[in-house]
Amino acid sequence: MTDSDGQHGLFISFEGIDGSGKSTQAKRLAQSLRDAGHDVVLTREPGGSEGAELIRKLVLEGDPDRWSAETEILLFTAARRDHLEKLIRPALAAGQIVITDRFADSTRMYQGLSRGDLRAQVDALHDLMIEIEPDLTVIVDLDPATGLARALGRGGTEERFEGFGEDLQRRMRAGFLALAEAEPRCTVVSGDRSPDEVAADILSRVAARLEQRA
Amino acid sequence: MTDSDGQHGLFISFEGIDGSGKSTQAKRLAQSLRDAGHDVVLTREPGGSEGAELIRKLVLEGDPDRWSAETEILLFTAARRDHLEKLIRPALAAGQIVITDRFADSTRMYQGLSRGDLRAQVDALHDLMIEIEPDLTVIVDLDPATGLARALGRGGTEERFEGFGEDLQRRMRAGFLALAEAEPRCTVVSGDRSPDEVAADILSRVAARLEQRA
Repeated sequence: MTDSDGQHGLFISFEGIDGSGKSTQAKRLAQSLRDAGHDVVLTREPGGSEGAELIRKLVLEGDPDRWSAETEILLFTAARRDHLEKLIRPALAAGQIVITDRFADSTRMYQGLSRGDLRAQVDALHDLMIEIEPDLTVIVDLDPATGLARALGRGGTEERFEGFGEDLQRRMRAGFLALAEAEPRCTVVSGDRSPDEVAADILSRVAARLEQRA
Repeated sequence: MTDSDGQHGLFISFEGIDGSGKSTQAKRLAQSLRDAGHDVVLTREPGGSEGAELIRKLVLEGDPDRWSAETEILLFTAARRDHLEKLIRPALAAGQIVITDRFADSTRMYQGLSRGDLRAQVDALHDLMIEIEPDLTVIVDLDPATGLARALGRGGTEERFEGFGEDLQRRMRAGFLALAEAEPRCTVVSGDRSPDEVAADILSRVAARLEQRA
C-alpha cells in the first residue's frame, strides 16, 4: 500500500481453512523478517486493536446463534475498520511490514459460504467501509481431513469442527482456491509439508516480493 | 410495512433533536393506542433487543473518541439489524404497531452531520444492510435553545450538550426538516407547546393514518 505521503509498508495476510497451519506460518514469517532486519507488526483478526478485541469478544462469546449472519458481518466489519485505523494504516504509513493472521478474505469465505449466500453483501460492505486489500495474501492450502486431524491433535474442540462440518471445510478450501485464481495478490502455498518446508517456501516468495519493490 | 404473508403492522419512528420531547411523546402515543385497544410494542435505539443493547453499551461506554465515526456507524447498523430481526420484523409480522424512539434517521443526522460528511456512506450502508424505513416518522421539531434548557432542567449534563454544541443542534434541526421535505413518510410536529397539546396532535395524525389503512 502506498500512502499519499510517499511512505509505504507491505501488507501481508494469511488465509486458509482451520488447521491449515496459517497462524504458525504467520508467526514464523514475522520472525524470519525480523531476523533479516525488517520492522514487522504481527497481528490477527478478528481483533488486533483494543476496540476490535472488544467486538471480537462480543461476537465469539455466548450463544453461537445469538447473531444472524448479517449482524455478524457488520460486527466483523466494524472490528476490521477499527483494526485498520488504529493499527494497520499507521504501521504501513511508518513503513512497517504488517502481517495479519486472517483479513477480509476470511469473512468472504466463512460468512459468505457458511451462513447463506452472502458473498455479494460481504463484498459490497468491504468496498464501502474498508476498501483496501493486502499487497500479498498467502493462502495455506490443505486437505480438510488433514487440517481437522491436526486441529484435534492440538486440543481443538471437535464440536466446533462438527458444527462447521467437513463438507463446509471442503467448500471453503475450494472458495480460497477460486479466490486465488481471481486475485493476483494471492499466492497459494501447499500446507501439506513439514512446517520448515512451508516456512521456507513462504519466505522465498515474500523475499522475491520485497526485492521486486526495492 | 406489508409482509409477504399478507399480515402487516404499522411501523412508527420518533425523531428530533435532544430535548425535543420525542421520548415522552413516543411513550404517550403508545399508551393512547393501547387504551384504544391496539397491540403496541414500544422500543428505542440504539438498543431495543438483547444483542443491540450489548452493542449500545459497547458504543456509549468508555472514551467517546474510542471509535471513529465510520466504526460507530457500523456498530449502530449492527445493533439496528439485530433490533430489526429480533423485535421489529416479528412484531410487524404479527400485526402489531411498533413505535421506536429513534431509528435510522438519527444515524443519518448524528453521524452524517456531527462527525464528518458521512451521510452518503450512512445511506449506502442502510440500503445494503437494513433496507426498510418506517411507515410513519414523527419529527418533533423544537428550537435548540428551548431543547437545551429543557434537557438541563431534567438533569441532563451540560457537558454532553456543550460537546455537541448549539450550532450542531441547529444543523441537526435543519437536517431533520430537510429530511421531512424529501421523505413523504415524515410528519413534522411542533414540540413548542404543552406535552398534552403535542400528544393530541400526534395521536390525531396517527389515527388518520390508521383509518386510511383500515
